Amino acid sequence: MAVPGPGYAITARVEAPASATAAGDLAVAVGRVGGVMTAFDVVESRAESVIVDISCNALSERHAEEITETLGALDGVKVRNVSDRTFLVHLGGKIEVTPKVGLRTREDLSRAYTPGVARVCQAIAARPEDARSLTIKRNTVAVVTDGSAVLGLGNLGAAAAMPVMEGKAALFKRFAGVDAWPVCLDTQDTEEIIRTVEILAPAYGGINLEDIAAPRCFEIEARLRESLDIPVFHDDQHGTAVVVLGALRNALRVVGKRSQDCRIVVCGVGAAGSAIIRLLLPLEPADLIAVDVDGIIHPDRPGLHESLRWVAEQTNHDGRTGDVHDALPGADVFIGVSAPNLLHADDIKGMADDAIVFALANPDPEMDPGVAQHHAAIVATGRSDYPNQINNVLAFPGIFRGLLDAQARGITDAMLLAASAAIADVVAEPNPLFIVPSVFDSTVSPAVASAVRKVSEAADLNSVQDALDAGSASAEGVTAEQE
Amino acid sequence: MAVPGPGYAITARVEAPASATAAGDLAVAVGRVGGVMTAFDVVESRAESVIVDISCNALSERHAEEITETLGALDGVKVRNVSDRTFLVHLGGKIEVTPKVGLRTREDLSRAYTPGVARVCQAIAARPEDARSLTIKRNTVAVVTDGSAVLGLGNLGAAAAMPVMEGKAALFKRFAGVDAWPVCLDTQDTEEIIRTVEILAPAYGGINLEDIAAPRCFEIEARLRESLDIPVFHDDQHGTAVVVLGALRNALRVVGKRSQDCRIVVCGVGAAGSAIIRLLLPLEPADLIAVDVDGIIHPDRPGLHESLRWVAEQTNHDGRTGDVHDALPGADVFIGVSAPNLLHADDIKGMADDAIVFALANPDPEMDPGVAQHHAAIVATGRSDYPNQINNVLAFPGIFRGLLDAQARGITDAMLLAASAAIADVVAEPNPLFIVPSVFDSTVSPAVASAVRKVSEAADLNSVQDALDAGSASAEGVTAEQE
Repeated sequence: MAVPGPGYAITARVEAPASATAAGDLAVAVGRVGGVMTAFDVVESRAESVIVDISCNALSERHAEEITETLGALDGVKVRNVSDRTFLVHLGGKIEVTPKVGLRTREDLSRAYTPGVARVCQAIAARPEDARSLTIKRNTVAVVTDGSAVLGLGNLGAAAAMPVMEGKAALFKRFAGVDAWPVCLDTQDTEEIIRTVEILAPAYGGINLEDIAAPRCFEIEARLRESLDIPVFHDDQHGTAVVVLGALRNALRVVGKRSQDCRIVVCGVGAAGSAIIRLLLPLEPADLIAVDVDGIIHPDRPGLHESLRWVAEQTNHDGRTGDVHDALPGADVFIGVSAPNLLHADDIKGMADDAIVFALANPDPEMDPGVAQHHAAIVATGRSDYPNQINNVLAFPGIFRGLLDAQARGITDAMLLAASAAIADVVAEPNPLFIVPSVFDSTVSPAVASAVRKVSEAADLNSVQDALDAGSASAEGVTAEQE
Repeated sequence: MAVPGPGYAITARVEAPASATAAGDLAVAVGRVGGVMTAFDVVESRAESVIVDISCNALSERHAEEITETLGALDGVKVRNVSDRTFLVHLGGKIEVTPKVGLRTREDLSRAYTPGVARVCQAIAARPEDARSLTIKRNTVAVVTDGSAVLGLGNLGAAAAMPVMEGKAALFKRFAGVDAWPVCLDTQDTEEIIRTVEILAPAYGGINLEDIAAPRCFEIEARLRESLDIPVFHDDQHGTAVVVLGALRNALRVVGKRSQDCRIVVCGVGAAGSAIIRLLLPLEPADLIAVDVDGIIHPDRPGLHESLRWVAEQTNHDGRTGDVHDALPGADVFIGVSAPNLLHADDIKGMADDAIVFALANPDPEMDPGVAQHHAAIVATGRSDYPNQINNVLAFPGIFRGLLDAQARGITDAMLLAASAAIADVVAEPNPLFIVPSVFDSTVSPAVASAVRKVSEAADLNSVQDALDAGSASAEGVTAEQE
């Protein structure tokens, strides 16, 4: 089912005989072992031989080796070297720090640095709030990880997490003009992580937690939201939840169902699953069944962790038990953020008519999406080589753009729901193959930013109004409650 | 003695009568109260009036107000608004984070982010050393402060230190192509500072400590040098010392003295003074007298802090006592990194012939450099409006460029001395008004980088050689000692 993608792209420099058939022979050889040739560049041409750069996509490192071995086995062909184009992209890192001010003359220096800068420092010391206008805080987000859950790869540690965090920083700038900086922490102690982020926070306008393992991530986020006066957002939780909710909104439109009539199964109750459940609850589904590696979650299941106990209380009205296969019969929606190849065609066949299947495990979905498509009305995955890719890039850049623009001091579920609706609404006419916009749709991030900003600013107004109301209401013995 | 500089530059937008004399009247008014007009831009011209932007430099905020008040008092002139051009430079911060990789197509995304990035993470997890080639670590320095000694302003805290650290980051890129990131710590606890930097270190190729108060800075630097495998450099100490040593080298050339024949007085034994003393000792001056606010340092002075005790042991061979005025008679060199206006003309008159005076207190020197010039052969200050400006910008960008290029794991005094010699040697023919190169001399940073890199690489070779030697030498009962 997998096809060669650009994640495994190589360029092989080969020397081949200067014959009329050389190019054809090389291309045939690549194709014979399943490689996809993407470029053929002659570097040098001599009387007897040519030097050619052959670029192609492969399935895996082993497959890339197989391709170069096949090339080298051709008559008269020598492979001179092979460069891995993915590694070339990462060489030297993917982001840089660039001055926004001129530093060409002594006058420039005097203003941007000493002695002029002294007055700017004193202004901030006198009015700390001015840091939001006179420093990079206004537009800067920390992308914080402890390297404990890097992509689907597990606990690789701080240094090995850097390529992901740098990539994320690059995406922040590319898709929303946000300056983001990778903060990879060489500790996996919850208290040290919390304290370190608190110590770093003054320079940032927001904190994006990333690839921190559950359940540690829940406490870290909750405690930081409590102690900091800037928004704290764990992308693996809320970024995923926002895009899933947006996609689900459009999927329900396509099949003509209301969330209140749907039974929804969420498989995987880690960072992403918990956040999805949390955002689904306000939609008041007919029922919500949560399943993890130990089966369906219900209040009587022994050994429930605190975060799972909360899920057990909020879901599974009918008290179902069993595993994921027991949860699916008759369900309207399956949302998987768990592990590869859990489901079979029969599981999908047993769902309600017009079933919606989001098989989001990465890189390999909970079931072959090609098979799922035969039995479900709508299928979505995390992969870019199938329709309906659920990709966090649709959410986090715009969400932080909106938070920074609003100078928000926190983030609420109302903002996340507004962001998910904004993503859904970018798709004017959803259909089974098009329930989320493309990651390259340049209208997504501004739409999300605007939605988040509006909720944030309305909340500010509300809290002023609430404070006023609380003043008069308390005279009547009523206290207004604020989010 | 002070002159209006660009650190206090304002632009006043005024409405004036459309008369032939208006421009002249405005310029005269600015000059009458001591402002220096730098630009006169007509924004709008009407039948009866003109709107003009008047840019001028002032001495202080109060002086800037005086200038605008004087303008407003002119007949028919209205001041519409006044913008402070220094603050305009800082608005929104002075640096940004920019992607170095294209993110235009899905192929770009697949390589720079998921799924391609996964293989890069795994490569680093398998070989941590690869972080130096596959991430920004290769070219990135943390500019770390706790905000406890911001410029000469004192303890302003983390947020108010940001404008300086951002400026420093901008200078790093401008002068040496180094990516530097401001890390402003919201703690002034020595243990927390050390631990936080350790936790952040994996992402960086070097640590530049900045504006951390003495004596805390000594312990922080020493402990981090011990625990980290990247260079740790406190610019207030070593950056200043490197430039001072370079300038002194050329000053001695100009007056034709050898350091071994000189008595040198160092006034101020904080971060900078201690580091200057430490780098001066290898030059074996005839004597070195250290003076702080409590007078000349000698071993019998009561209550010496640990760092001062070390100074007392290394300096003042003749056991002098008294204050700075007692230290100066007959001295060849005065290096002040202390407080404004400590010295009088008589102090300089009493020094040896061809005296060298470095009055580096900022923003106001230990004595009026105009007066000092009458009695000393060579005068240097930290100010940009006198000759011989001792400016750290000559040192830190090139030093880190060299350290990063060498992938250095530490920094030694030998590297600092090499850097100071490189700065001195950029000046081919020093004279009393030209003992250090201009900060805009583009050959300085590469020369410093090259000198530091050579020492670092030689040290690597030496340590290999030492290890080999130690192997054979230990057979003879001798252990090679490594720095």
